[in-house]
Amino acid sequence: MTAVASTLPTGQTFDTALAQGRRAYELDRKHVFHSWSAQAKIDPMTIVAAQGSYVWDGEGNRLLDFSSQMVNTNIGHQHPKVVAAIAEQAATLCTIAPPHVNAARSEAARLIAERTPGDLNRVFFTNGGADAVEHAVRMARLHTGRYKVLSRYRSYHGGTDTAINLTGDPRRWPNDYGTSGAVHFDGPFLYRSAFHAFDEQQECQRALEHLDRLIAMEGPTTIAAIILESVPGTAGIMVPPAGYLAGVREICDRYGIVYIADEVMAGFGRTGEWFAVNHFDVTPDLITFAKGVNSGYVPLGGVAISEAIAATFADRPYPGGLTYSGHPLATAAAVATINAMEDEQIVQNAARIGADVLGPGLRDLAARHPSVGEVRGLGVFWAIELVADPATREPLAPYGGTSAAMNEVVGACKTNGLLPFVNFNRIHAAPPCTVGDDEVREGLAILDTALSVADRHVVH
Amino acid sequence: MTAVASTLPTGQTFDTALAQGRRAYELDRKHVFHSWSAQAKIDPMTIVAAQGSYVWDGEGNRLLDFSSQMVNTNIGHQHPKVVAAIAEQAATLCTIAPPHVNAARSEAARLIAERTPGDLNRVFFTNGGADAVEHAVRMARLHTGRYKVLSRYRSYHGGTDTAINLTGDPRRWPNDYGTSGAVHFDGPFLYRSAFHAFDEQQECQRALEHLDRLIAMEGPTTIAAIILESVPGTAGIMVPPAGYLAGVREICDRYGIVYIADEVMAGFGRTGEWFAVNHFDVTPDLITFAKGVNSGYVPLGGVAISEAIAATFADRPYPGGLTYSGHPLATAAAVATINAMEDEQIVQNAARIGADVLGPGLRDLAARHPSVGEVRGLGVFWAIELVADPATREPLAPYGGTSAAMNEVVGACKTNGLLPFVNFNRIHAAPPCTVGDDEVREGLAILDTALSVADRHVVH
Ligand SMILES: Cc1ncc(COP(=O)(O)O)c(C=O)c1O
Ligand SMILES: Cc1ncc(COP(=O)(O)O)c(C=O)c1O
Repeated sequence: MTAVASTLPTGQTFDTALAQGRRAYELDRKHVFHSWSAQAKIDPMTIVAAQGSYVWDGEGNRLLDFSSQMVNTNIGHQHPKVVAAIAEQAATLCTIAPPHVNAARSEAARLIAERTPGDLNRVFFTNGGADAVEHAVRMARLHTGRYKVLSRYRSYHGGTDTAINLTGDPRRWPNDYGTSGAVHFDGPFLYRSAFHAFDEQQECQRALEHLDRLIAMEGPTTIAAIILESVPGTAGIMVPPAGYLAGVREICDRYGIVYIADEVMAGFGRTGEWFAVNHFDVTPDLITFAKGVNSGYVPLGGVAISEAIAATFADRPYPGGLTYSGHPLATAAAVATINAMEDEQIVQNAARIGADVLGPGLRDLAARHPSVGEVRGLGVFWAIELVADPATREPLAPYGGTSAAMNEVVGACKTNGLLPFVNFNRIHAAPPCTVGDDEVREGLAILDTALSVADRHVVH
Repeated sequence: MTAVASTLPTGQTFDTALAQGRRAYELDRKHVFHSWSAQAKIDPMTIVAAQGSYVWDGEGNRLLDFSSQMVNTNIGHQHPKVVAAIAEQAATLCTIAPPHVNAARSEAARLIAERTPGDLNRVFFTNGGADAVEHAVRMARLHTGRYKVLSRYRSYHGGTDTAINLTGDPRRWPNDYGTSGAVHFDGPFLYRSAFHAFDEQQECQRALEHLDRLIAMEGPTTIAAIILESVPGTAGIMVPPAGYLAGVREICDRYGIVYIADEVMAGFGRTGEWFAVNHFDVTPDLITFAKGVNSGYVPLGGVAISEAIAATFADRPYPGGLTYSGHPLATAAAVATINAMEDEQIVQNAARIGADVLGPGLRDLAARHPSVGEVRGLGVFWAIELVADPATREPLAPYGGTSAAMNEVVGACKTNGLLPFVNFNRIHAAPPCTVGDDEVREGLAILDTALSVADRHVVH
């Protein structure tokens, strides 16, 4: 158990925070409807404060935040420059409608365009990732005059209708009425290869052949877009093999299909580059982003748009919008976030941590714990794939579900002071890009303990 | 022309703001992709500051904001209590993931549930109106096991795929692939009656018969929900006749159809009640909200959920979510907004302004200007329907379009210091709920001038 704080970073005393937390919990159970949950079966954790790489729960326990919440606080919790920028913009101008020009929005668009590859120079702002995906798909459909969109199994693209139908995980199933035009394919994932491949090169080649064959069967002229997380996040942080994204780009060019890179989770420093595509030297036609763009301090997402697609809507109206497109408070937070990340070399820190501390540390855990089937990742974006049987690679929880064993492992993380990101049989280590070496070592030590719990469930 | 300000409410000098505005405009034209627009054909207005009922443009001109931007700043611009609450929450805890309990989110849910009619006691938070609609539709589909959703022509429900397909205005057309399950019906609108009705009572009765007939033909057992703006907003502020919403409620009950009231624009004080359904003593099964809930100071929307529908997701997971559901900064702004509206009797002010100043003033303009076919509204939510011919009711701009005459009228508003909300042949007078009597009189005087311009286009 971690020590109980006597005062919190907010300056509140422990007792005040505790009382507030209890009241918040009571009201939450009465009035808050939670996402992705059976309302009567959850017992949510209260969070009363957060700072840097840490959060404090309703009992005042400090936890190392290896989830970055929903993998969005890339700049850490409560970064003073972003907090100050929010207060300053709030005092100046909280909100203004999308048709008008606003300084914060303009500057955020410039800073984003400066960082996107190729000629993705125009930015359509949304509130989050799902609506970014919705609008990107709309742009692709109208640009091509085609309807169907291809996405991979083992992916997540958001919770609105089009986005959830593009999603390649079980959360799609209850939302899938077969009307969305989404068609799914298998991406490269050597550890659980759909292609009976032996190495990354073969996996890459076969995955591209599979995609090409699928397009031939579906009809190239029926496909508006391929949407692809540059590094699939929630679904398992499968870093694509060298050549895969370039191959997708080539296939899209061949058939006039729009290539949408979904960088909602992977973008803005998470992988140790501003965008994950930068690792692979590939320029998509559209990039969807959210989360890291302002670390989620204020809801913001968007689509970075190539000149060719923007030109489609030069004289013909783009038929889409939202009340808060380019919200001043949200874009001011993006300006402060991007500038702080630049000034403090936060993207570089993520890259270094991944290469020198977190990656090697996780590989060491994998070598010592039989429950770890594989670790994989980049920057501060890592998955630990837990298995009940290293030989068969049987996952420690079934696809789409949970298990007593996984709950025990996650419980061990929390009791020992670590908040991980969890999905099915995986624990993701996704601390902020600002995380320090010692914090990573602290997290690795807790994972070491928790993985010993997992090891007890491994069949020998 | 209104006077040029020498200093702005932000304390900035005119020259600094001007320079910033020019730079913002330049960057906007290079990097910002605007909603609902042909990018090469727009010349957006810069807004450099806002306060109460006023905004300042890129030349330092002060304009009376009768648009409330996108009809969202119900509490006026830069309300000090909301600005302070944002700064305070930012300093405490900007963001936390939806699975965790958070004090601001809990309290906002309580305050909203306290104001919703009936047993709509649970709140699912979203980022805005469109995703509120998406999630409400999903809840209705899973609750009923049916797919189709009915909505009215002359409506707006948002810009994501499901929401835009439910929308009954021309912005749906380029997004409509016939796959969404949306079926449209005619609602009551006596001035342009689809039912050849002579008075409100007949319009109401025939509109309900039409809806009932449509349901019989579509198949009651195929219909998950009817979604209805309680007072359609963008489409023309058609206050429903007495008995219409109660009739819809009765039809929904008869067929086990979920009644979704879309109060994104009409809710939170706009009509002089917390929710527009309150005028009609009707309890829907779901209410979607956004905008006024925190005046759009931070992006926020949501769905208020009946106990019966919440119970559907007690033991079975609700398959939907988003990274920023119940965002602390956004919900803290809602708490401050709702409390300020209560303390300062802002909803009551909206009702009084509508009954005593704005309504009578607009009726007076209608009596004196032949270009005004009709004025209609409630609270601070009014439409002026402009016609080229009072006899035939030919609109001053075609449905779905604009016209030189309308542009002239809108231009006259702006030159004289008024920023209206404009849609096709209509000017909407939608000042903040905090608007003062003198400000309304100032706006009415400018409208008087602008309507004289409209009168010149009337055929006699
Ligand atoms: C890759 C990806 N796309 C889209 C989304 C949806 O973003 P949001 O939750 O902001 O709607 C997510 C969220 O986790 C994501 O990881
Ligand atoms: C009635 C109604 N529903 C939904 C929406 C969509 O809200 P948003 O623009 O926040 O997505 C609007 C926006 O104007 C609206 O007026």
